[in-house]
Amino acid sequence: MALIVQKYGGTSVANPERIKSLAARVARYKALGHQIVVVVSAMSGETNRLIALAKEIMPDPDPRELDVMVATGEQVTIGMTALALMELGIKAKSYTGSQVKILTDNAHTKARILSIDEHNIKQDLDDGYVVVVAGFQGVDADGNITTLGRGGSDTTGVALAAALKADECQIYTDVDGVYTTDPRVVPEARRLDKITFEEMLELASQGSKVLQIRSVEFAGKYKVKLRVLSSFEEEGDGTLITFEEENTMEQPVISGIAFNRDEAKITVLGVPDKPGIAYQILGPVAEANVDVDMIIQNTGADGTTDFTFTVHKNEMNKALSILRDKVQGHIGAREINGDDKIAKVSIVGVGMRSHVGIASQMFRTLAEEGINIQMISTSEIKIAVVVDEKYLELAVRVLHKAFELEAA
Amino acid sequence: MALIVQKYGGTSVANPERIKSLAARVARYKALGHQIVVVVSAMSGETNRLIALAKEIMPDPDPRELDVMVATGEQVTIGMTALALMELGIKAKSYTGSQVKILTDNAHTKARILSIDEHNIKQDLDDGYVVVVAGFQGVDADGNITTLGRGGSDTTGVALAAALKADECQIYTDVDGVYTTDPRVVPEARRLDKITFEEMLELASQGSKVLQIRSVEFAGKYKVKLRVLSSFEEEGDGTLITFEEENTMEQPVISGIAFNRDEAKITVLGVPDKPGIAYQILGPVAEANVDVDMIIQNTGADGTTDFTFTVHKNEMNKALSILRDKVQGHIGAREINGDDKIAKVSIVGVGMRSHVGIASQMFRTLAEEGINIQMISTSEIKIAVVVDEKYLELAVRVLHKAFELEAA
Repeated sequence: MALIVQKYGGTSVANPERIKSLAARVARYKALGHQIVVVVSAMSGETNRLIALAKEIMPDPDPRELDVMVATGEQVTIGMTALALMELGIKAKSYTGSQVKILTDNAHTKARILSIDEHNIKQDLDDGYVVVVAGFQGVDADGNITTLGRGGSDTTGVALAAALKADECQIYTDVDGVYTTDPRVVPEARRLDKITFEEMLELASQGSKVLQIRSVEFAGKYKVKLRVLSSFEEEGDGTLITFEEENTMEQPVISGIAFNRDEAKITVLGVPDKPGIAYQILGPVAEANVDVDMIIQNTGADGTTDFTFTVHKNEMNKALSILRDKVQGHIGAREINGDDKIAKVSIVGVGMRSHVGIASQMFRTLAEEGINIQMISTSEIKIAVVVDEKYLELAVRVLHKAFELEAA
Repeated sequence: MALIVQKYGGTSVANPERIKSLAARVARYKALGHQIVVVVSAMSGETNRLIALAKEIMPDPDPRELDVMVATGEQVTIGMTALALMELGIKAKSYTGSQVKILTDNAHTKARILSIDEHNIKQDLDDGYVVVVAGFQGVDADGNITTLGRGGSDTTGVALAAALKADECQIYTDVDGVYTTDPRVVPEARRLDKITFEEMLELASQGSKVLQIRSVEFAGKYKVKLRVLSSFEEEGDGTLITFEEENTMEQPVISGIAFNRDEAKITVLGVPDKPGIAYQILGPVAEANVDVDMIIQNTGADGTTDFTFTVHKNEMNKALSILRDKVQGHIGAREINGDDKIAKVSIVGVGMRSHVGIASQMFRTLAEEGINIQMISTSEIKIAVVVDEKYLELAVRVLHKAFELEAA
């Protein structure tokens, strides 16, 4: 017997029929003797309908009152879900975030969970109930209704699993797990049975949008066993996200390939190589709220250095004018260039820590296809390269094959 | 400066436009320096939509979960109302029943209010806020969301007015007050500026369906000054419902005329006049859950008695068969008759306590029109007669004229 938290998103509770099929799935788990907590989102479209209603009254709605309205979306779903379970003969009881209570800070529309009172839920589980909890919402110390912002239901699921010391937190989505890479680019992409939390973070932040990063971070912090599954398929164990690097020897070296088409590259050439130059270049950029991703500096033989970094494509021109207006003359750089025809490709894997030669295998594979590498950046479990945008799909495909990711 | 509770029903909050016009009205009161608490119902149709959604999942929905769903109706309205007030530059803050907190018993879908914590609302009013409270809902001692049943928003308004010791509770409805009688029957019917609580109870229970009886009883118990007004008209002071019989001398003798077409008359003839006969006749009827209204017993000269009572028309046949099957032989009654072609007409007025001759004036007026009186029943502030159904409108019109109700 295990204690399982199951989180179902908007499309899984889109209408009464889908809610009944969700209840049937919960019933099968319950029949195996598990204790189940179900976390549900609002019916798909409902949150947007409520926001539109608020904006009809006040174009820029007061966040406290907006939360009061929007929180009703999940409140309707928990009632319907509990009824659907009862209709199958299962004891069920619903809780709003406030009833649980899920205590948050008072940052309306984007509140953060501070603590969860798990006492009543535990009691209900011991009494044989399936407990249905409204995702995405909580209550602040003054009793105001708060919401966690988009994707917050994942966080509710993970936080409840942490508070209840659940054996597993299952996130039901439209996809059936985490893949070695995007199947639309590489049809041979394979669903991973297992992935470490750190790999997941690298993959999620780089384009494999399966889980909200915030919920994954939360799961990591509290060591919650997370599993991503499809709410549309009856079979399949999805992808388990683990936090221990158990049996590293048996682990595949590379777990997946992430990519990102949204970055642009900025190069500052011929900068006199002096201490503090990186800050002089990036300080004004950061002050303008431009996010910087990769950063590379290479010192040449002539006492000057070349400095390259990437920003979001939409912000390249903003960054370029800041550098040309405020920085170039000041630091005496020879030239400043921008290039938004680039893409980033990363291989991710905990296994690369204990394997040498992964980087050179990656570089050789790309070289054999004539793909020039413009930038390289490495972390303990990731090697990222920037290449010409037009080579992106080719690069992902040949790397997927070279690291034998399609094999079971 | 007064503290006023204003309650707005479903049609007053039917859509964003109506809510904006409600806010404009509140703003005008606020500008006069009053402290205002606004109680709102769900948008019209919303409660029924939520009940239908629940029934789609479970034909006979669990009442706890039904309350969880239905309570979202008012929760959306309080958010919208607070936003509409803010949009007019007024400080406003919404409260669900649970947030107030309005403590009820645990009788889901028909809960009764036990107590109200007025502390936070008082504080907000003193801080210059208009406080918007969800009608119709509360929370039980275990934190479960409850609803008060149909019409419960009136009760919320009155209960809040009592808890806050408000100067007045204003109930905004589709009509602009309480009339001397139904204007559809007597076009000269006049809106009453003032009516006592007891008169209101008699008028409301007999067909002048303006307020929920339960809320009027509640107002009487806690001496809340109630005023009925139209939410569709800008002008007019509506009808004030008072609890003191101040200046009885100046009061009109009769305040209004109520009538009811929904009753049927059952007569048990030739019953041996023995103690306990009333119980032997009405006991079996009451056990079958048939409500009895008027009851009259007249003892004849021959040692037998005639026993007459009225029930709802829909239940006449049920009552007749109970009497014929279980009672007639047992008590030795000669005959049992039913008549559903009757109507009840009542004159209501606190003033009749101190005036003699009211009853005879009523009977003479009806006699002059050739209207036969079949039954008479009196209370301290009411004289009710049963007449042939076909004379109903005539009876109401001549009585309205005889007691000079059309005069200002």
